[in-house]
Amino acid sequence: MTADTRVPPARPDPDAAAFHALFESVAAIGRTERGGLNRLAASAEEGQARDVVCAWLAERGFALQIDPVGNVYARLGLAGAGSDSPCILTGSHLDSQPRGGRYDGAYGVVGACVAADAIRRARPAGCTHDLAVVIWTNEEGARFAPSMLGSGVYAGQYATDYALASQDGQGLSLREALQAIGYHGSGQGPSSPAACVELHIEQGPELERQGARIGVVEGNWGTMKYIVTFQGVAAHTGPTPMAERRDALLAAGHLIVACRSLSDRTGGRLLSSVGRLDVEPNSTNVVAERVRLYAEMRATDNAMLEQACADFESAVQEAARAAGVQAQPVRVTDRPAGRFDAALCDRIEQAATGLGLSTRRLHTVAGHDAVSLRRRCPAAMVFVPSVKGISHNEAEHTAPEDLEAGVEVLASVLWGLVHQPVA
Amino acid sequence: MTADTRVPPARPDPDAAAFHALFESVAAIGRTERGGLNRLAASAEEGQARDVVCAWLAERGFALQIDPVGNVYARLGLAGAGSDSPCILTGSHLDSQPRGGRYDGAYGVVGACVAADAIRRARPAGCTHDLAVVIWTNEEGARFAPSMLGSGVYAGQYATDYALASQDGQGLSLREALQAIGYHGSGQGPSSPAACVELHIEQGPELERQGARIGVVEGNWGTMKYIVTFQGVAAHTGPTPMAERRDALLAAGHLIVACRSLSDRTGGRLLSSVGRLDVEPNSTNVVAERVRLYAEMRATDNAMLEQACADFESAVQEAARAAGVQAQPVRVTDRPAGRFDAALCDRIEQAATGLGLSTRRLHTVAGHDAVSLRRRCPAAMVFVPSVKGISHNEAEHTAPEDLEAGVEVLASVLWGLVHQPVA
Repeated sequence: MTADTRVPPARPDPDAAAFHALFESVAAIGRTERGGLNRLAASAEEGQARDVVCAWLAERGFALQIDPVGNVYARLGLAGAGSDSPCILTGSHLDSQPRGGRYDGAYGVVGACVAADAIRRARPAGCTHDLAVVIWTNEEGARFAPSMLGSGVYAGQYATDYALASQDGQGLSLREALQAIGYHGSGQGPSSPAACVELHIEQGPELERQGARIGVVEGNWGTMKYIVTFQGVAAHTGPTPMAERRDALLAAGHLIVACRSLSDRTGGRLLSSVGRLDVEPNSTNVVAERVRLYAEMRATDNAMLEQACADFESAVQEAARAAGVQAQPVRVTDRPAGRFDAALCDRIEQAATGLGLSTRRLHTVAGHDAVSLRRRCPAAMVFVPSVKGISHNEAEHTAPEDLEAGVEVLASVLWGLVHQPVA
Repeated sequence: MTADTRVPPARPDPDAAAFHALFESVAAIGRTERGGLNRLAASAEEGQARDVVCAWLAERGFALQIDPVGNVYARLGLAGAGSDSPCILTGSHLDSQPRGGRYDGAYGVVGACVAADAIRRARPAGCTHDLAVVIWTNEEGARFAPSMLGSGVYAGQYATDYALASQDGQGLSLREALQAIGYHGSGQGPSSPAACVELHIEQGPELERQGARIGVVEGNWGTMKYIVTFQGVAAHTGPTPMAERRDALLAAGHLIVACRSLSDRTGGRLLSSVGRLDVEPNSTNVVAERVRLYAEMRATDNAMLEQACADFESAVQEAARAAGVQAQPVRVTDRPAGRFDAALCDRIEQAATGLGLSTRRLHTVAGHDAVSLRRRCPAAMVFVPSVKGISHNEAEHTAPEDLEAGVEVLASVLWGLVHQPVA
């Protein structure tokens, strides 16, 4: 990366200063006291971050479209003017966890902007494909469920109306939230996506441990998520005899412990977590009437994952029996392990090697918009290291030189794709 | 009970119609769809309920004082006009759980109003003591901690400033909340309380099971409450290796299960519960950074209770170790089992028997304002049956004839006390 130059280079040369400037502008919106982010999907803050990115792209001649679920597509117009021309997609998301880090998602959006702008400035000739920067809606799933909702709609996984009807904890629908920030559009995304490359921080410790600069993401772990509702009976925690209590929180306690033991049995190869509990009425001296428990399990091995799901569902019933309550488990995410496009992965590896950057092939444990996109076109991801693997935490960090390296790799890959796409 | 009569009776005869009318007026404020109550301490709704009761008392000539923590004292002025004259107290609270029942607390306030008014109408002569109806602030502890806060201040257990500084979940102090509803007063309660009798629903199943109409509450179970803070590290539930997770919710799960097992070991003689968990950030795919867990244990045997506390504190550390997190347990309530005034209990039993009502002696498992008051003056309680023992639940119910019987007993006891108090 160099500073912008007056003479257009023959190859894309992303503007490092522009990258950091735009990244910091975006990171300032929804910034928490401890330097993280609280920028939930379709919140006022996420709307402001979208506005900043859209203005940056519009100033540079990108043509913006917003679809009904709020996905933003900024086309460069490299080859042909119609929306039917085949198109390369790159982007990520601007929404965060309630106390998330500043790199998760936003890095991929800002990196895509700067990489795509480098291609514009390199004045490519003979392109066979157009290029679009994309902001996907509600990747995190922290405000609206399920996660990866915007990319899921574009990929044909979810109907638009299903996505728009999703409600946050206050009962506000995604449709209403998008209308409030001005991102319930009537446009549409490229009808002929030819490939999708997403740039992202790793969010795990592998690259740092291996001393690799660039991660070539070959595939994704399988992920299964459940929402389990335990229905007990509200009662005074004083006079109600123990034998007569129907304690929904006791059932949740049993299931939290059982869920962890599923992982322990595999020596940690199965990842599992219960990260959220909604307890009603959640008062000290009332036996909990109802608990909603949000659990997930991840593995690279689909057979292991299916077995874990069966064991989990048994554990739900055992927990309910132990507490004398009713249980209803619903599997809300069913995403088996899968692989990204092999040819795209090779391109990423070649681009990194060409730039003198060490690489490592790995599988993403976290879900990403590119995993959704795989249903519709060849897709792959570029990872850069996360310091200590810390993510979904305000302390999330990636070194500036690693951020720049990722953008350079992305620009190089995109440069190849608009001239000679895969498949 | 009869309807009001023009000729004053020689003995107090509570007005049943007036009781039901006032009770229904109060129960309508903060009423939930399912017929329960959501009337948290010092909320707008509780303020309205206080207003209704205060207006009812003022119309009948009671002199009202509001102290700084919002306790309302309505004196009848039976004997001497000064605030120094010895005084019999009767009353309860108007605050409820978030989804509580309509009888818990409000019955004791309305019953006290109607019983005291019956004494007024009976035109007592030769009284040695005055009589005051009291509304105590924040008995439930659902909005502000600890519970029984207003009566605790009057009894000398808590300093006024400590109580006023207590904050609700939104960070609003009790002082601010009382100011908002106009109940941060500058008055004071009777300086020479001679006895306190509180009327309340049982909230447990014993009276109904024994077929007794009136419960003579001889004492209270011991109650120990803890707030345990588990401090973990927020992390992505995907890429973070299981061995590196510091999961505060996992620790909470272990402790919930361990807490229940403390009760199971005693065959249910030790009551225990975890009714509330505050989870941060409480997002599906973030390992929980911090959990506040609210636990309580109750027993009639103080030695058993102390042993349970020691075992609980060990379980806290084991749970923390199992999840790799830090733990900080704080014992926020330390109320050993104790006995009410024996002479007052005898008076209650005699009054009930004189009215042809069957009685049963029992100990309250739940905390009550009268338990606080015991620190300052002889105290006791009158219980009436709760249908199926259901309480802290919108389905809480007591039969109208049982409500009336309790008020009659209370009036009879108070009639005796203003003429010839105990001690």
